[in-house]
Parts: sequence; C-alpha cells; structure tokens
Amino acid sequence: MDRDPILLTPGPLTTTLRTKLAMLKDWGSWDADFNALTARVRQGLLQIIHAQDSHVVVPLQGSGTFSVEAAVATVVPRDGHLLVLDNGAYCKRLGKVATLMGRRTTIATRPEQLPVSAAELAALLQADASITHVGLIHCETGTGIVNPLAEVAEVCQRLGRGLIVDAMSSFGALPIDARQIRFDALVAASGKCLEGVPGMGFVFVRKAVMAGCEGNSHSLAMDLHDQHQYMERTGQWRFTPPTHVVAALAEAMVQYQEEGGQPARLARYTDNCRTLVDGMAGLGLRTFLAPEHLSPIIVTFLAPSDERYRFATLYAEAKAQGFMLYPGKLTAVETFRVGCIGAIGHTEMQQAVDAVGRTLRGMGLGPA
Amino acid sequence: MDRDPILLTPGPLTTTLRTKLAMLKDWGSWDADFNALTARVRQGLLQIIHAQDSHVVVPLQGSGTFSVEAAVATVVPRDGHLLVLDNGAYCKRLGKVATLMGRRTTIATRPEQLPVSAAELAALLQADASITHVGLIHCETGTGIVNPLAEVAEVCQRLGRGLIVDAMSSFGALPIDARQIRFDALVAASGKCLEGVPGMGFVFVRKAVMAGCEGNSHSLAMDLHDQHQYMERTGQWRFTPPTHVVAALAEAMVQYQEEGGQPARLARYTDNCRTLVDGMAGLGLRTFLAPEHLSPIIVTFLAPSDERYRFATLYAEAKAQGFMLYPGKLTAVETFRVGCIGAIGHTEMQQAVDAVGRTLRGMGLGPA
Repeated sequence: MDRDPILLTPGPLTTTLRTKLAMLKDWGSWDADFNALTARVRQGLLQIIHAQDSHVVVPLQGSGTFSVEAAVATVVPRDGHLLVLDNGAYCKRLGKVATLMGRRTTIATRPEQLPVSAAELAALLQADASITHVGLIHCETGTGIVNPLAEVAEVCQRLGRGLIVDAMSSFGALPIDARQIRFDALVAASGKCLEGVPGMGFVFVRKAVMAGCEGNSHSLAMDLHDQHQYMERTGQWRFTPPTHVVAALAEAMVQYQEEGGQPARLARYTDNCRTLVDGMAGLGLRTFLAPEHLSPIIVTFLAPSDERYRFATLYAEAKAQGFMLYPGKLTAVETFRVGCIGAIGHTEMQQAVDAVGRTLRGMGLGPA
Repeated sequence: MDRDPILLTPGPLTTTLRTKLAMLKDWGSWDADFNALTARVRQGLLQIIHAQDSHVVVPLQGSGTFSVEAAVATVVPRDGHLLVLDNGAYCKRLGKVATLMGRRTTIATRPEQLPVSAAELAALLQADASITHVGLIHCETGTGIVNPLAEVAEVCQRLGRGLIVDAMSSFGALPIDARQIRFDALVAASGKCLEGVPGMGFVFVRKAVMAGCEGNSHSLAMDLHDQHQYMERTGQWRFTPPTHVVAALAEAMVQYQEEGGQPARLARYTDNCRTLVDGMAGLGLRTFLAPEHLSPIIVTFLAPSDERYRFATLYAEAKAQGFMLYPGKLTAVETFRVGCIGAIGHTEMQQAVDAVGRTLRGMGLGPA
C-alpha cells in the first residue's frame, strides 16, 4: 500500500499536503523575506491567545521539550523554587528538567486519572512561602487529561507566584485567553494542534517578566531572553533556524485561520474524539479517564483484559490498514492511546475505529 | 521573478528538489519505519568519517549550536577545564557556551587571518595541567579559515587531553578520518555540506568517553548520554524528532553517496571556490585570507574601499538577480562572505560573479 498512513499520534501528526508543500523552498535565514515570515508567525501566535499587549513570544529550535526547559531556565531565577503539579508523565519530565538544571523543585503528585487541584495548590503555596513558581501541564498527553488552567492561574495570581504552563498539546485547540488568564510563561510547539511539522517550539513570556530574566539561564541555547533580545534587534534567530519547519508552520497557520481559528479546530477535534470514543465503546473498549475528564486531544483506552490481546499486533494490523496508533504511557495499567488531532476528520476517525474493530476480531476479541 | 534564489550562505543552503521532496510525508516518530530511517542516517554518518569502530553518533534536535553546547555539556565533566582555540566568531561562541554552563574555560585568541597553532597549543597544555579538554573549530565560518585538525589532535593525544571538534561547516566536504585523528567529540549538522535542511545536529562521541559521561549535563535537552542511552534501548529519539528534517537528511545522504562521497563533494566545492575567487579577482575584489588559508566552504571578501560601496545595495541587487550573499562577521574590517557549498556548481558560481560584477558597475565601482 503506497498511501501514507494517518497518524493518530499527538505530534508528529498528519499535516495537509499544502503545509508540506511549503517546505519545497530554501530560505536564507539572514534574508528579509525570512525575517518577515518569522515576524508573521510570531504575530499570529500572539493573536491566537490575545497576548499582543501582555506577552512576547519567542520561537526556539528543537522539540517542544526544549522550549519547556528554556521556559524554566529563563523565567525561574537561579534561587527560585518551582512547584510542579504532577498528574502524569509530562509533569514528571518538567520536574526532572528543573531539578537537573539546579532549580529547587518540589513535585506535588496526584493520581493520574484526576485533574490537579487548585484548592490543593492554594494550600501548598500558603504553607511554603519559598515557592516562587508553579509549573502546570495544561493537557497531560500521558493520559489526555485536561488540568484546570484558569483556576490554577487564579490561585497563582492571588498568592503572588509565577506560573509556567506547558500548553504543548492544547495550544490552538483549547481556549486560552491571555487577557483573562495570568501566566509568566506558556509553551507550545509547531507540530501539535496548529498542524505544522515538528522542529520548533515557542514560549510566550509576560513582558514585565521577560525584562527581569537576563542572566537566569545556564544554557546559551535555552536562553529565551537572549533569543528575544537578538530577535527584536535583528529580526533574525540567534542560531540557524529550521527554515523549512518555520515555513510549514506559517502555511499551517494560514489554514488554521481559514478553518475558523481555535473554535473551529476545537469543534473538529471534539467531533473526532466523539466518533472515536463512541466507536471504541461499541467495540467494548473503555477509556482510562472518566468521561468528564476526557480531552479532544488524545484519548487513553484500557487494553482488553484478555490474554490474547497484544498491543504489537493491534499496532501492526491498524498500521497495515492505514492508521498509526500510539502506545500507552502508564505503568500501572496496560493502555493504548489514540490522538484526535491533525488534519483529519470524522471519516478518518470512523475508519480507524473500523480498523481497530477488524483487528480485535482477528485476535478473537471484541463484542459477540 | 518566481525562481527561487540560490543561497550562497553557509547553511541554510540550496538543497536539491529531491531532498526537499522527501519532506512530503508525515512520519510517526514512534514507528519502526522512522526508527529504521534514524538508524540508517546514524550508520551513514559514522561511515563518512570511518568512525564505526571508535565512536557512536548521537543526533540532536535544534541548530548546530545546540549540538555544540550538548557536546561540551556531555563530554566535559563539571570540574573539567576547557581550552578554546580562538580565531573567529564561532570559537568565541564555543567559549561563551562553556562559560555560561559553568565549566572552567580559557580562551586562547589568535589573529583571525591565521590558523590556530598546534605548537602554541602544546605550550599552553604543558604550562597548565588543569586543562582537561581542548575545543577546536575545524573550519571557522566567520572567516572561512581551516584550522589544523590533525596537528591539534596529535598534540591532544600526546599530552593526554580530550578534544572537542566543531566540524559544522567542514563535515562531509573536508576529509576527516576517525581512524587516524583522535577526538572525544565531533559536531556537525544536517544543513551544511551534507546538503540537508536545517533542524538537527549530530555529535560523534568516542565510545570509551561516552561510557563516562553520565550525569555531566545540567540540561536534559542537551544530555547526549541520555539521548544515546534511550536511542540504543528503543531506536527512538527521547523527545519529538524533526521527522521531516531527518527524512530530508536521509535523502540528501543518498545523493551524497551517489555523487561519490566526500572526495567528490570536496572537488565540486573546490571548483566552486576557484570559480568564485578567480571571478571576484577579475572584479578587483580580494579575499580577507591569504590564498593558502582559503577553504572551499565559505570565502570572506574585503569590501571595496570606496565610499560609494554599500553592502545593502550589493545584497539587494545580487538577490534581485537570483543570488543571496552573506554579510561579513568581522569587526575590524568591512567584508562580505560568499558560500561555496550547497547543491550548486560552476554555472551558479559564475552567474553569481557576473551578478556581483553588474552590481558593482551599477554603483560606479569595479575595474575600468
């Protein structure tokens, strides 16, 4: 079969041909045309969350995790103290990043099937005045759960602490309004709900915060203050940008606006999620999270509790039918994940469900 | 004019359409097909410098500078002492990277128009036993000068110090043989002489050295030991890889071998350089470096010493004729640079010279 499979993964994901075609050009990274492209992308990113007045946005080479590390390295002072609200694998990674770079870090762990708690956060902050910053994963891709960003931001603002949000897998799909939600830094990347290709991240930093960030970072590559200063002065990236990735993101963002922006994207992903969850329920597959905690980004399904089930077989057979699933990331229970994001719609999700159903029946599983 | 300009820049550079077409596919970063692609790229990179037996190669997301920083962070212990041999802008950047991450760093500065000196290095190392590592830029892109890698490596080996080589702009074009030249780490990137697109770097680390690198890095993103361990165990990148960039590099490397590998690429770039330098000489433009120090990678030209000369005009007019030049990076003298690398040959170089000549004549400059 020569047709490219559909990626039901949370980035890299399936992009449009139009987005990929934008990569068929070599850009001079010093050239005014490329600077204009970078400026257009930055302006468009700010508009998506209405952050033009309050924040700057700094793009950074590398994967989204690089941008998460850069946000912590730049925004949290060397004598700061970061509290990480942990209910999943990406929360734990944030804690690891901060600890490794030498920032004092406290991890507050909650069960993976529940959102983090703003009330618990308030109590933790009131009990420990040394905590300067809070780290939150908006949508924890390990399970797909959405954490209460607005409530957490309200607590941080009320108690005078900085907030760093990893909005990697939610940005562009779930609503975020920087005029109403106060954060010091918010991180996302090219290859998620904006439906670009992977290779760059970006960090929104509150203007007043950025002004005080000089010298925080131990790492030149991760120093967003330096990257921002240089970009403001020259219009260029400090170090060679992934020019083709930037061009693809710019093209993907045009299509994002043509589709209707965040509300339209959320509506499509929500429909994808409903098609998926309803279809899988018909195959006897239950979600790991309770229905009220599901996100339209990625859904974790409990593996069938049958000894004939093999994820490797499910994966291979679904792939042979044109759909790439994603492994689970939980240690306690066997699961697999299916992404709802990317340049896909109802038809692809229904076909994916059909492929999973055929595969399970081939294993001798599934409803009678 | 709709035709894409030729990039006479040292990366990003002009790539073939075939290389760019390899980006018209979305890859699942967890999938076996993509793992095979990564493995093929890594194997091919090792073969180019005959390092299969002695070294591992670890790819890393981001620009080449990210990989330089990762090499220092991973290979130089926290109580190490790095001596940077400095004769240009990228040498100074290496020094800055090491200093910022807290490694003890000494900079030995030489004039920019001369190669670094292995004899001077030997004297410095003999005078200071605390120096554990030496940092060398193979081809300093700031001027285009080639530094004596073999001689420096011999001194490091004889005096028992580690060597970190930034071979960013030389790798794939200038000969490097890991069986004959001993180094701890050597760094390059996708978007240089291999003629891929920018977005990833890679670091060769001597196997015996890598074994002792655990825990050196303060940065999770920059930790090549961790990246390597994970990749060996799973076949995957730790964090989302720039899948399209990797695919383009794999395709570029096929063409590299088809062309005849390093000797053929060097021959083409040498011809490009000769066409350029001879042609510019005919326009009255002299190189910053003496002829014996020129590299076939990038050439720095002295700006015409005429008050009517404007680089902005030269750049704009050359671009209008289809060629992107590169600004100089020297502070003391006004210069501009022209790259000889990329998917270009004699015809393009001659046309570029013609375009520069026309532009200079339009400014009222040039030979009578």
